Amino acid sequence: MAQPETETPTIPPQRLIALADGVFAIVMTLLVFQLTVPVAAETDRLGSALAEMWPEFLIYVLSFLVLGLFWLIHHLIFDPVERYDTTLIWLNILYLMLASLVPFSTGLFIEHGAVTVTALIYGANMAAVFATAWAIFAYATTGYRLASRDLDSEVRRGATRMGFVYMAVILVAMAISLVSPVAAYVLYGLFVVIVIIFTMVGRADVVMILPGSARDPGPDLSHDV
Amino acid sequence: MAQPETETPTIPPQRLIALADGVFAIVMTLLVFQLTVPVAAETDRLGSALAEMWPEFLIYVLSFLVLGLFWLIHHLIFDPVERYDTTLIWLNILYLMLASLVPFSTGLFIEHGAVTVTALIYGANMAAVFATAWAIFAYATTGYRLASRDLDSEVRRGATRMGFVYMAVILVAMAISLVSPVAAYVLYGLFVVIVIIFTMVGRADVVMILPGSARDPGPDLSHDV
Amino acid sequence: MAQPETETPTIPPQRLIALADGVFAIVMTLLVFQLTVPVAAETDRLGSALAEMWPEFLIYVLSFLVLGLFWLIHHLIFDPVERYDTTLIWLNILYLMLASLVPFSTGLFIEHGAVTVTALIYGANMAAVFATAWAIFAYATTGYRLASRDLDSEVRRGATRMGFVYMAVILVAMAISLVSPVAAYVLYGLFVVIVIIFTMVGRADVVMILPGSARDPGPDLSHDV
Amino acid sequence: MAQPETETPTIPPQRLIALADGVFAIVMTLLVFQLTVPVAAETDRLGSALAEMWPEFLIYVLSFLVLGLFWLIHHLIFDPVERYDTTLIWLNILYLMLASLVPFSTGLFIEHGAVTVTALIYGANMAAVFATAWAIFAYATTGYRLASRDLDSEVRRGATRMGFVYMAVILVAMAISLVSPVAAYVLYGLFVVIVIIFTMVGRADVVMILPGSARDPGPDLSHDV
Repeated sequence: MAQPETETPTIPPQRLIALADGVFAIVMTLLVFQLTVPVAAETDRLGSALAEMWPEFLIYVLSFLVLGLFWLIHHLIFDPVERYDTTLIWLNILYLMLASLVPFSTGLFIEHGAVTVTALIYGANMAAVFATAWAIFAYATTGYRLASRDLDSEVRRGATRMGFVYMAVILVAMAISLVSPVAAYVLYGLFVVIVIIFTMVGRADVVMILPGSARDPGPDLSHDV
Repeated sequence: MAQPETETPTIPPQRLIALADGVFAIVMTLLVFQLTVPVAAETDRLGSALAEMWPEFLIYVLSFLVLGLFWLIHHLIFDPVERYDTTLIWLNILYLMLASLVPFSTGLFIEHGAVTVTALIYGANMAAVFATAWAIFAYATTGYRLASRDLDSEVRRGATRMGFVYMAVILVAMAISLVSPVAAYVLYGLFVVIVIIFTMVGRADVVMILPGSARDPGPDLSHDV
Repeated sequence: MAQPETETPTIPPQRLIALADGVFAIVMTLLVFQLTVPVAAETDRLGSALAEMWPEFLIYVLSFLVLGLFWLIHHLIFDPVERYDTTLIWLNILYLMLASLVPFSTGLFIEHGAVTVTALIYGANMAAVFATAWAIFAYATTGYRLASRDLDSEVRRGATRMGFVYMAVILVAMAISLVSPVAAYVLYGLFVVIVIIFTMVGRADVVMILPGSARDPGPDLSHDV
Repeated sequence: MAQPETETPTIPPQRLIALADGVFAIVMTLLVFQLTVPVAAETDRLGSALAEMWPEFLIYVLSFLVLGLFWLIHHLIFDPVERYDTTLIWLNILYLMLASLVPFSTGLFIEHGAVTVTALIYGANMAAVFATAWAIFAYATTGYRLASRDLDSEVRRGATRMGFVYMAVILVAMAISLVSPVAAYVLYGLFVVIVIIFTMVGRADVVMILPGSARDPGPDLSHDV
């Protein structure tokens, strides 16, 4: 992975992004097929049959938001990327492979509920995606291998630090699942909701990097079409 | 959600749109899997077995047109959007999450027919999407937060008014479903057909906003490639 | 559908195309799920179990090529389109809805084999798509409503004539299915193979229109990137 | 397939690529549905039930990487393509049809394990895709029919040679499957891992062509956005 590798890239960036956007659109949409429609025999008590499905609806919403977060992180870490090589392509495919497992992890919960094994796998799935995101960011930005020189080194350090925080939270929740799987799922949910709220109140730095505020500190940062 | 938030955006608009177009393409296509092929045992009376499926085919067409309408609305409300922030990203993901539930709502009807619970859920699904569309439009255009200053305030008021009309129709149909679920579904269908006809005879203002007629009142409004 | 309608369009053409490309990519890919993997009980005679599936593999290939043809036609009829209105949007959604039914029509054959009902539905599905293609082309090009003035009127007439030929072939095959459903499927297959061969030997005029040869009769017609 | 054929193309290249990116995103994502969630009856021994699924997880990873390789090859062979004709369109659709069969080949292994028939079909699927890739590359570059004149003839010969090596490896593995199906799958896996490692250490020439190093031999080869 020495310098000359950057000579092999030949795939325009749009296609990497297009593949990722396509995979995320599909994984998000397919989640709904983990929700099983109650069978016809239950028509006379359909309301309560659906009400009993509340854990399924909750995990559906959680997994959809988790995938939304994976998509947001994917775009934030690819934002400073200016050049591409084959290593990045395979890291990208690894990221998509791990994200594609979310319907399986979700299906485990729906079939078996909040038990230690399902909580561990759900957490491991998230942790693996975050670790891959961190690897992509580190690979692309170390020595500005593939990233723009506009990327502030302070931002780099902040993003790396944030990656560790994410991993720590997930690992703590996984440890808790050994005692209380329900508490682990609650923690996963709280984690995602808190990240979403932070990003919405203008603290995008919680999602690993904050290219906007670092590169354009002025008031005219908003993107025009 | 004060002014400085607009400093965080870093995701180019194309990707938000690409994710939405991908999700809509997939949800529309997956609808067909709610149609169950009659089993081989029925081959000798396959014609009548298919004829008995007419409610399934009707709801398939209705749900496909509903998704077409959701797609049209998504594009109309994003038309005046010029800048992006993280709040808009999460509102967009919410919009897609609710639209992705349509195969589930459709599956409930196919399995249980027109009963109050299925009609209420089908209507609630539509109402939730319309409410999110209204929230996206309000968030983006209030004080021209993310929208072009070309957007006429009259158009803004018209779109908001139209959003209320949509919600009112759906809520009335949901109320009717308590008495006659069949009548509720008929109303959902009439509503969609009427909106389509209005948009086709040049009254796009029925679908929440009418950016074309407001911004380009002249006769040369047609888009050139 | 008078002149002023062209004032309402506000959706950029790329999104109509993106939705169509997405739907076709998904329908093509989902076809494979109509192929049922023989169950584990048959492992000792897996080879012959798969060999007995030859009609399933044949219809898979046929339906994939039919969808490829629908995709090719979609792009050819949208090639001269320069402007968009809401009517075109809904015609496009109708086209996609009918194309999305191909997995259902294919599943009917796989479950029930070549009987009159399945052959009639398979043919009706194709005929409905061709009719919608013809309607889109006629709507867009009549009086150059939405099409480029570069479109030769000779091409327009040729395309319309070709649409009638397509419809006639399918209707004849459907009539034949009343006597011999197998012969109808053979005719569908021959039709698709012949169209593909004609387009490959440079006679793209068999697929409804021939914009290339009509608009650029010189030898430098090839598209550069 | 004489010279004048290049006069028929009218479909812009982006749409061919968009269709391919869409199909690959979907096939990759749908693979996860070949992984069956253990049923609720096994909740008390869920950990060991999942551990027993290790062959399913291994083939999932292998098939995902195989599809990643197909995607990479698709983009490498389309990289020098500058012009399009209908023959290329149908070759592209054939490529996508064969790649779409991977979930079926994967499902055969999951249901029946490593037996000669499943190993032969898995290998035949890969070989058919490689053969189509070779046909696309040969068709597009022979006499610079559709390819850029920048394409070095040395690169052309190297890519053709590489295509033969790929085919030879797969055919040897298929022959080995007659004696030991497990060894054949091990060979498929080793082959994919070795190709990935070679591409990552800067030897992209193992994946059929090396347009980058051939066309831009200088040190500034990296693609800027």
